[in-house]
Amino acid sequence: MKNTFEMGATMIQAVALNDEEDTLILLDQTKLPNEKSFLEIKTMKDLWEAIFELKVRGAPAIGIAAAYGLYLGTRESKADTYDALYTDFKKIKAYIGTSRPTAVNLFWALDRMEARFLKEKGKAPQEVKDALKEEAHHIRREDEAVCEAIGEYGLSLLQPGWGILTHCNAGTIATAKYGTALAPIYLGESKRYGFKVYADETRPLLQGARLTAWELKEANVDVTLICDNMASIVMKEGKVQAVLVGCDRVAANGDVANKIGTSGVAILAKHYGIPFYVCAPRSTIDLKTPTGADIHIEQRSAEEISTKWYEKPMAPEGVKVYNPAFDVTDNSLVTALITEKGIVYPPYQENLTKIFE
Amino acid sequence: MKNTFEMGATMIQAVALNDEEDTLILLDQTKLPNEKSFLEIKTMKDLWEAIFELKVRGAPAIGIAAAYGLYLGTRESKADTYDALYTDFKKIKAYIGTSRPTAVNLFWALDRMEARFLKEKGKAPQEVKDALKEEAHHIRREDEAVCEAIGEYGLSLLQPGWGILTHCNAGTIATAKYGTALAPIYLGESKRYGFKVYADETRPLLQGARLTAWELKEANVDVTLICDNMASIVMKEGKVQAVLVGCDRVAANGDVANKIGTSGVAILAKHYGIPFYVCAPRSTIDLKTPTGADIHIEQRSAEEISTKWYEKPMAPEGVKVYNPAFDVTDNSLVTALITEKGIVYPPYQENLTKIFE
Repeated sequence: MKNTFEMGATMIQAVALNDEEDTLILLDQTKLPNEKSFLEIKTMKDLWEAIFELKVRGAPAIGIAAAYGLYLGTRESKADTYDALYTDFKKIKAYIGTSRPTAVNLFWALDRMEARFLKEKGKAPQEVKDALKEEAHHIRREDEAVCEAIGEYGLSLLQPGWGILTHCNAGTIATAKYGTALAPIYLGESKRYGFKVYADETRPLLQGARLTAWELKEANVDVTLICDNMASIVMKEGKVQAVLVGCDRVAANGDVANKIGTSGVAILAKHYGIPFYVCAPRSTIDLKTPTGADIHIEQRSAEEISTKWYEKPMAPEGVKVYNPAFDVTDNSLVTALITEKGIVYPPYQENLTKIFE
Repeated sequence: MKNTFEMGATMIQAVALNDEEDTLILLDQTKLPNEKSFLEIKTMKDLWEAIFELKVRGAPAIGIAAAYGLYLGTRESKADTYDALYTDFKKIKAYIGTSRPTAVNLFWALDRMEARFLKEKGKAPQEVKDALKEEAHHIRREDEAVCEAIGEYGLSLLQPGWGILTHCNAGTIATAKYGTALAPIYLGESKRYGFKVYADETRPLLQGARLTAWELKEANVDVTLICDNMASIVMKEGKVQAVLVGCDRVAANGDVANKIGTSGVAILAKHYGIPFYVCAPRSTIDLKTPTGADIHIEQRSAEEISTKWYEKPMAPEGVKVYNPAFDVTDNSLVTALITEKGIVYPPYQENLTKIFE
């Protein structure tokens, strides 16, 4: 697939290697939306802290950062044989794994780096280090290619001038580049499609307000911030022609687990006759999970809703709070899944397996 | 209708007269949910400020406060004839009217007080002042009776043990007592129905978190706070058997204008097969407004979404924001309207006129 992202060159990247200095450049996402600052990570310990403190977030971006971190850590080793370097490598890998132990992409990336290490068996330490750097680059470039492909397939479903609603953040800063749900929007922007994007603020953690509105505005995309409960009125008023969201996991039957509130948006879209598209890299499609009912939903703290971000508490002290981090959108509400291997339509049970053939 | 609110005696009232001291007792709603404090209003000027500073809010509560305020102001007059007192009264009325000029109930209550003044034509100033006090009491008691009746009719639609979802605040502190949407819940509680209430936090002004969760918790009702975007998951999980909301205006065809997000909740309820009830005093039913499309929706400032309440801005500076204060719920989504004259079912165009006969 041809890279048509003319604007891509200047697009913000959450994770990149400064080749000259051999350091990792990370966008500090904890400072958003008030400050655009980049961290220059020189040591494995700094990388560990950046992941732990959520300065880098978004599953693909975490995986990429971890891969580079493993390279940076191994580079520090003074081991003078392959075997001695491997001993150090294993320690570094275990250490980085403790930075965000629930992030699946983190371990996937670390394992892939180890596979590469083992592939270089017997080589001199410097050669192995170079190979690790190359592998981290590969991981990043592959994610970029996945996002680009999703952008191309997604854009084929959209028309110039459309209003597009999105929820949470599945954008460039959550991935190597372009994002998943935002990739078709960036690609359309580079072709002057003139989309009008509505970003749900996405309570309680406000990823839509803090991150999506920020990165789209940075890229000069026409973005309007709304509260989650305003999705219905913007749809009713004819402002929205398609919904694009990312996802955390897709079950074999096409049920989609994504940020809390996604299922509500899908129901509204269906009510108003608006297509609801889920941008799903194959890495999120889990054929071993039969249905959404088999996906465990993480419950989070009351404080996220009642006190976090606020000057003073906004709910009575001690009030019961229900705070699920994700919800499951029934496959019947999903118009199509946009993957890097093409657009998948219902019946998902049948069609999802085809993109793995 | 018999008053069955056993718990009513101890229920929080937003506006009450201290008969012994002849002062107005106002719950300071700007201090909620962190502090339960009452203001003792002795002068018309203090009352004006309390309304202006939103210390009292909710259409019925504002009307009641204004009526008492007009009494307090007139009481201060040293006029020794009916006509001289009327001159003072008119000035006081005009002054109170400037405290919250968009509040329809405010003017309705002030006009009603004037009608009473005129009814006492020629009487001695003290007799007129007593009559005004009585009229303010009437206005409060009538609102209480309306809420009680809505509570009774509403409760007839509910079963013990049900989960009930509500949006925004249509509770005791917005009215004389009991509220509209919360009246059936309080009545059920007094009969040990054991409801489980889910309160949408109601962005951007958080009336659900700050007010509804607070007043229900104060009354020992089982209440759980959720973000607006969690309504879908609690419905899907079978936690909700009915939705109860208040309203700002009902059109002749049954379309309902209410706090932003109400229409989304109604669509979710329909999707999940859950009844959606709107508690609507006749004073909110406007037969002169043909449909919801004829209701003007107030647009509010970007700051309410991007900076208000927060320690630091939660959206990029200067980002476009769409912030409608209300939305219109299509009559096809409304299972029934609960009024003080009975439950109104579709077709609303036909049935709404009957409760005014």
